[in-house]
Amino acid sequence: MSVLSSKILNGDVRGIARAISIMENKTNRTGVSEAEELMKEIYPHTGNAWIIGITGSPGSGKSTLTDKLIEQFRTEGKKVGVIAVDPSSPFSGGAILADRIRMQRHSDDPEVYIRSLGARGALGGVSNGTRETSLILDASGKDIIIIETVGVGQSEIDIMRIADTVCVVLVPGLGDEIQIMKAGIMEIADVFVVNKADRDGADKVARETRAMLDLLKNKDWIPPVVLTIAEDGSGLPELVSKIDSHKKFMHDTEAGIERIERRLNSEVENLLLSRLVVRAWQLWGENKSNRIKDMLELKTNPYAIVDEIIKNI
Amino acid sequence: MSVLSSKILNGDVRGIARAISIMENKTNRTGVSEAEELMKEIYPHTGNAWIIGITGSPGSGKSTLTDKLIEQFRTEGKKVGVIAVDPSSPFSGGAILADRIRMQRHSDDPEVYIRSLGARGALGGVSNGTRETSLILDASGKDIIIIETVGVGQSEIDIMRIADTVCVVLVPGLGDEIQIMKAGIMEIADVFVVNKADRDGADKVARETRAMLDLLKNKDWIPPVVLTIAEDGSGLPELVSKIDSHKKFMHDTEAGIERIERRLNSEVENLLLSRLVVRAWQLWGENKSNRIKDMLELKTNPYAIVDEIIKNI
Repeated sequence: MSVLSSKILNGDVRGIARAISIMENKTNRTGVSEAEELMKEIYPHTGNAWIIGITGSPGSGKSTLTDKLIEQFRTEGKKVGVIAVDPSSPFSGGAILADRIRMQRHSDDPEVYIRSLGARGALGGVSNGTRETSLILDASGKDIIIIETVGVGQSEIDIMRIADTVCVVLVPGLGDEIQIMKAGIMEIADVFVVNKADRDGADKVARETRAMLDLLKNKDWIPPVVLTIAEDGSGLPELVSKIDSHKKFMHDTEAGIERIERRLNSEVENLLLSRLVVRAWQLWGENKSNRIKDMLELKTNPYAIVDEIIKNI
Repeated sequence: MSVLSSKILNGDVRGIARAISIMENKTNRTGVSEAEELMKEIYPHTGNAWIIGITGSPGSGKSTLTDKLIEQFRTEGKKVGVIAVDPSSPFSGGAILADRIRMQRHSDDPEVYIRSLGARGALGGVSNGTRETSLILDASGKDIIIIETVGVGQSEIDIMRIADTVCVVLVPGLGDEIQIMKAGIMEIADVFVVNKADRDGADKVARETRAMLDLLKNKDWIPPVVLTIAEDGSGLPELVSKIDSHKKFMHDTEAGIERIERRLNSEVENLLLSRLVVRAWQLWGENKSNRIKDMLELKTNPYAIVDEIIKNI
């Protein structure tokens, strides 16, 4: 076992930070083998942590909710890791980072580890970097890992592949039907949180969400809808209790175990894909600029080029 | 040349429909080689059509706008193909299809071809099926191809890779800052359309979008902001004229040609990736259920399995 792996298993903060940086670089297509060696070493030491995904529109109060969840789990004596996935746009970064400053009050607590990850990765980038960071935190002895991600783009679907329990945060007055109707949102939520529940329309959002859930036939797990006011902590104990119920469902029922199997399946698929991407990029990179020039001059086309590359693998 | 390729080049509607179905099946991981042979044959006959992407939130009026764009281009005597990409959620399908019914009034016009594509494809699925359909329509002699896609998930980023001119449709009263701030939206738009411009707040959306655009430094192309009322056709001639300006930019400037090169690059990358994915899925599928069982029993892990598969490619 490498020195770095040992450090992770001992919960060494600098070791954890260094390992996560290696993973981040990996998604930028460098340092692949170092990252892989590390993952192979630590993977057998994972499986203890429960991974909670928090996703929702910008402005739904995810960071405050995460902050209060950390507090709640700490009172239960649990060790907590947080991965905050930043969206890629340079325009939204600022506001979201400001929201997250509050969370930093936990950074003096040695049993809380908070890390922001950029979401700028290429194909499969977000999901791999995040998944690997969660494995590092798991191996380092955290009991709970919270992944907070803005509900835009691919990150929503990725979080379902990584998190054990996905909480989708809704909020009154943000174009509610659109939030709920958004492609796939019903499929990814294990728990719905209607946050800012002191605002007008909160009951309506909760009611409409429940009505939508009634349309789901043959569901083994009906996602509960929890009303919270993250600002003052209202509803947080109930949220934690619903997350616990979902954990029991996943461990104790056949349907839950099937879901775990599906996630293992997609973990292999994603990993396989990211390895293939690296290989494909290498092969294409070798003679790229000449080939692009030939395509512009219509001497060749992408299909012919790909045929040639595949033959050389 | 195959009989099917000849039919496509002659603009035969049934041949086109059949070819697109082959591409759709391809994204479901079957029939790969038939699809590839066809693409290799028709690719050299493409490059005439200008591909316009229309993306935006549900309810922004994309379908009505597309309908009016078809009308506009038809008065100029241009042949038009439309690809309507449906989002995957079973909850939103109905409403969106209803919106699109109006568009079908053009289906009696032999120079207009409209096709809906499902977006249920797996990794890389949306972008490949759509790209290939656009190539088929291009080869069949269409002058303009409009790709309409809901601005959720990966489809937004995919459209940038496929369309020559991307129009992002905004609308007053849909949580405007969020629409504009959404990760990456500034990067993908070539033209901003503020639709339903007779509604309160349209000027505000336009102003804020322009203000946001002012923040872009060193841009070779500053996306224009066009106000439209798709319902009655207001602003449509200006929209078409801005699309034309963008086309000129792409053809006549070094910056435009660089963008075309980048798109050729990502076309090769995507194609290469989808070919590798097919092979990897085959290898993983062979002994999948036993391997998942072993993972559940902690006898192995995804990293070890992927290593093994990669060795066998």
